[in-house]
Amino acid sequence: MRSADMIELWRGPLCESLHRGHAVICDAHGVVEAWGVPGQVIYPRSSCKMIQALPLIESGAADAAGLTDRQLALACASHSGAAMHVATVDGWLSGLGLGEPDLRCGCHMPRDAAENRRLTCSDTAPCQLHNNCSGKHAGFLTLNRHLKGGPDYVEPDHPVQRAVKATFEEVTDEDSPGFGIDGCSAPNWACTVEGLARAMARFANPGTDRRGQAMRRLVDAMRTHPEMVAGEGRSCTELMRAMGGVAAIKTGAEAVFVAILPDQGLGVALKITDGATRASEAAITALLIHLRVLDAGHPAAQAHLDGPILNCRGMVTGNLRRAPGFPG
Amino acid sequence: MRSADMIELWRGPLCESLHRGHAVICDAHGVVEAWGVPGQVIYPRSSCKMIQALPLIESGAADAAGLTDRQLALACASHSGAAMHVATVDGWLSGLGLGEPDLRCGCHMPRDAAENRRLTCSDTAPCQLHNNCSGKHAGFLTLNRHLKGGPDYVEPDHPVQRAVKATFEEVTDEDSPGFGIDGCSAPNWACTVEGLARAMARFANPGTDRRGQAMRRLVDAMRTHPEMVAGEGRSCTELMRAMGGVAAIKTGAEAVFVAILPDQGLGVALKITDGATRASEAAITALLIHLRVLDAGHPAAQAHLDGPILNCRGMVTGNLRRAPGFPG
Repeated sequence: MRSADMIELWRGPLCESLHRGHAVICDAHGVVEAWGVPGQVIYPRSSCKMIQALPLIESGAADAAGLTDRQLALACASHSGAAMHVATVDGWLSGLGLGEPDLRCGCHMPRDAAENRRLTCSDTAPCQLHNNCSGKHAGFLTLNRHLKGGPDYVEPDHPVQRAVKATFEEVTDEDSPGFGIDGCSAPNWACTVEGLARAMARFANPGTDRRGQAMRRLVDAMRTHPEMVAGEGRSCTELMRAMGGVAAIKTGAEAVFVAILPDQGLGVALKITDGATRASEAAITALLIHLRVLDAGHPAAQAHLDGPILNCRGMVTGNLRRAPGFPG
Repeated sequence: MRSADMIELWRGPLCESLHRGHAVICDAHGVVEAWGVPGQVIYPRSSCKMIQALPLIESGAADAAGLTDRQLALACASHSGAAMHVATVDGWLSGLGLGEPDLRCGCHMPRDAAENRRLTCSDTAPCQLHNNCSGKHAGFLTLNRHLKGGPDYVEPDHPVQRAVKATFEEVTDEDSPGFGIDGCSAPNWACTVEGLARAMARFANPGTDRRGQAMRRLVDAMRTHPEMVAGEGRSCTELMRAMGGVAAIKTGAEAVFVAILPDQGLGVALKITDGATRASEAAITALLIHLRVLDAGHPAAQAHLDGPILNCRGMVTGNLRRAPGFPG
């Protein structure tokens, strides 16, 4: 058993590059369809932020802090660091009586073009609010106030991360084989592609218990506020908009992508083995088309799959295509 | 026969992503070592710029225009669009009685941080001189003046591109199966990985004829002026500096890399199947170490292979490693 051919980059008459990977679609009862190796162990990276946000709600911390759905969407986000995202996290921390120095995510330049330009041209360094994970970290700090833990909430044995790990293992229904340190310094627990798809299927089939209510709230927050989950021009935001809110989707670094389809009761998880985001975006596009929640001709779909790739003189050089046997 | 495991990205206790590829080492007589499929057809992209520059010298056009070694290095370059690169191409075109509008490479923002910032903060659009291929195109225009061709020198049937194709097929010793349009709008002819390595071995074992003299001149230009071949902080420039000029190396888009080792009489070509530059840089680093021309502990080597990857708080998250069976 090995990874499956998924996405090809064509240029002229030849396939120039090939991306292989693993993908699993689950319903409430188990695996419905799979490509590659369902048992492949991966780091879900940011694709599991809605799992990491479950303890925030289940503990009662989110309600105690009066979090809105926009804030909950931001807790599940890899945002672009646009002014809107930065201001929302800033206001959130103020509401907790905390500030930027309480974050432990570190600083990086924002993707958002306007904010990036503002910082660059005013010789201003980015702050931790710009970190794409600052919403998740604001969620961690909200949970931490409730749990009364110490300030270093990204330590793997801190009560916040212990709660995240326990929840992660429950919803994937797996004992995690270990963790890596993520770009934002939080531990990222490993699971199988199947375990991640199983967790997404649980979000798509939430029960009426406390966990089910928390899952429904996060999925609704994400699909109602796609601009908070990523940003203008980003795949999560644009594809959720293209689907008119029928699915919640989330990318993760190193080419992970998940989707939650409540109407069909399906969860999807995929990992491109080489870690290329262009391929995970193309592959999730193919699977969303395959599952009939995304129109193949929509500009947001074409931007990731099949549509022409132009060079800097506007000439068509090729496109990204499904490999033979990969659907969509 | 299929691609070989080459480079792994490790995070914590697990291999997170894997890059596969093809690599061939040739001497003057043929293949010395190979991984993956030597006969895999690829687009060499910018890795073959020293081949594309051969007609410029062999025709007598370079000497007629009085080109310097710095200009010849730039003809083989994917430069960063730093002020130095832009000024050199600008002066070159002026010397021909031509200007920026005569280029057919198109415009993109330069990689060079200072020049990028200057353009961004002065609200200035990049021009064609900033295109990483503008040196190659200045070479095309120099050859074109000699050949008295029309202005659209990137058309596949233009005398300039016909000369490039004929030379490409001679030095790879293959009939090309076709071409794709490159990012800079020039045709890029396909060949096998073995054919590209064979061509590089010819550069490493130049004869005393006109072609051999042209090859020696380009290789010497590249290794004497590594700052013109790419730019500060770039793999071609930094690795050539780290090797003290004993090899000429060149990257190409979609994860191609070649090396010319005159002292050993060896040529190297590799392609990472998924097109990831981080992996082609790591793989050429491994092969240069394997061939004993690069010190594994040199900071420039460590930057591409084995050295720690830090997140934005300076924590070590993992590193890039050789896959089992790939040397270095």
